[in-house]
Amino acid sequence: MESLAPENGWFSEIDKNLALSLRQNGEMLFHEKSDFQDVKIFDSHEYGRVLTLDDCVMLTERDEHVYHEMITHPAALTHPNPKRVLVIGGGDGGTVREMARHPEVEEIVLVEIDNMVIEQCRKWLPQTACGLDHEKVNLIVGDGIEYVKNGEAESFDIIIVDSTDPLGPSEGLFTESFYRKAHSMLAADGILMVQSESPRIRVGIFQEIYSFFDKIFGQNNVHCMMIHVPTYMPGTWSLAFCSKGGLDPRKDMKTERGQAFIKSNNLDYYNLDMHQAAFALPNYVQKLLGRIEA
Amino acid sequence: MESLAPENGWFSEIDKNLALSLRQNGEMLFHEKSDFQDVKIFDSHEYGRVLTLDDCVMLTERDEHVYHEMITHPAALTHPNPKRVLVIGGGDGGTVREMARHPEVEEIVLVEIDNMVIEQCRKWLPQTACGLDHEKVNLIVGDGIEYVKNGEAESFDIIIVDSTDPLGPSEGLFTESFYRKAHSMLAADGILMVQSESPRIRVGIFQEIYSFFDKIFGQNNVHCMMIHVPTYMPGTWSLAFCSKGGLDPRKDMKTERGQAFIKSNNLDYYNLDMHQAAFALPNYVQKLLGRIEA
Repeated sequence: MESLAPENGWFSEIDKNLALSLRQNGEMLFHEKSDFQDVKIFDSHEYGRVLTLDDCVMLTERDEHVYHEMITHPAALTHPNPKRVLVIGGGDGGTVREMARHPEVEEIVLVEIDNMVIEQCRKWLPQTACGLDHEKVNLIVGDGIEYVKNGEAESFDIIIVDSTDPLGPSEGLFTESFYRKAHSMLAADGILMVQSESPRIRVGIFQEIYSFFDKIFGQNNVHCMMIHVPTYMPGTWSLAFCSKGGLDPRKDMKTERGQAFIKSNNLDYYNLDMHQAAFALPNYVQKLLGRIEA
Repeated sequence: MESLAPENGWFSEIDKNLALSLRQNGEMLFHEKSDFQDVKIFDSHEYGRVLTLDDCVMLTERDEHVYHEMITHPAALTHPNPKRVLVIGGGDGGTVREMARHPEVEEIVLVEIDNMVIEQCRKWLPQTACGLDHEKVNLIVGDGIEYVKNGEAESFDIIIVDSTDPLGPSEGLFTESFYRKAHSMLAADGILMVQSESPRIRVGIFQEIYSFFDKIFGQNNVHCMMIHVPTYMPGTWSLAFCSKGGLDPRKDMKTERGQAFIKSNNLDYYNLDMHQAAFALPNYVQKLLGRIEA
């Protein structure tokens, strides 16, 4: 791959033919290789502090809300009584921070493979890492793939795969056998939420994982959501909402509970209108997913 | 401003603290300064051919559909009988290509200031420039601001401001007096559609132009739409739908006409679900617009 060589003071995420660059504010706050990946934290002029893993932006202080609110609230507000939640990955704490807001949720098991991510987010990104210390959170430093392999059947109401891209430690999270095992760990009415890449780049992976979901859950129970995160190049990203018991996120959303939830939490992105809108798919996405003819 | 210095073979759009880079495929196809701006056309690996003006991406072959479909179809399918349409800017032809698809539309006046944009798009970007040759299109090379200043009252059903950012030749398109004049040129039930910048960057301009729209049209008649164009850094962009006669794009959309339209046109992005979804606003946007408390 050719490289883009920015001048000092810019961080660039490069994806073969595209690059997104953020101007840094001062020096790196942290940069080390863990046993699993290259971990960087720096401050940017436009988006506040930034966490990158293997030079891919994982979160920025300014726009992390989009991803973390959308990977949690639509599922939590569609499930009739989400008591037990499993999060694979998500060591920055943003996903569990949002999930813990739901009064119905009693326990959140978080399995993060990389302790360096947890420790450094605690130090530099308290806005998200605060979630890790919530009393509902049971934090396990370990391999999420192993955890799911040995998981108990029907033991969780919601499972969230909050992973990096399918390279390095996350590769095994993007396989049919992993999702099949996750499906078996869901209780009746269970929902699996997965970070499902961008339909604008890495189109092959996007199509492949949705073909797994369709096979395992049945196409009618697989709902693709569009979310828009400026620092997840190319800005258009997707999440998969897969329903074991047939709950439909648009029809079965608990409106009254949702309204109360919105009222008592000062959210940055999610509201009941955005809940519905996120499941509307542009034609090009419907074509990629085989929902309409290409 | 510090500059990002990419290696040869990359085009970068830089916005102070952010940059989006596209890897070029071969040499520049065209690069000249017109009387108004710097015009480049090149081929990119990821997005096909690209038009930039003053080093801002105006369109790419692969994702131009989002902007052009969304700046036209929601208005055309909400208006009960859109016969006459005015487009200010849009010399690439994409907006008139989409507008001409509507059988109700009889005449489209396009006023583009820069003949070089027209000529070079005809040469290198026939996918969009084909719109310029449609029999309904009356192409005027001239100053859109002057055209509107001298415009006849109530003479258009839809006016579209398809402009570059508020720098250089487009600056005068982002003023209260311009929008006020455009308002007066709208017939009863008229709709003004405006490229209204990104709520993620240049937030001040975004807020300012919506304050103009609110004053001129009344806040209930001003509907902000979110669109998602990977090459419009930061990927999240907005269009303003301003209604003179109180038409509401979500309630008053002509469903039957819309369904027939979708069926007979192979669109890339727009469908009736996306029509509704585009008007759902994340909390952060509602806060910027003063629709909910910050």
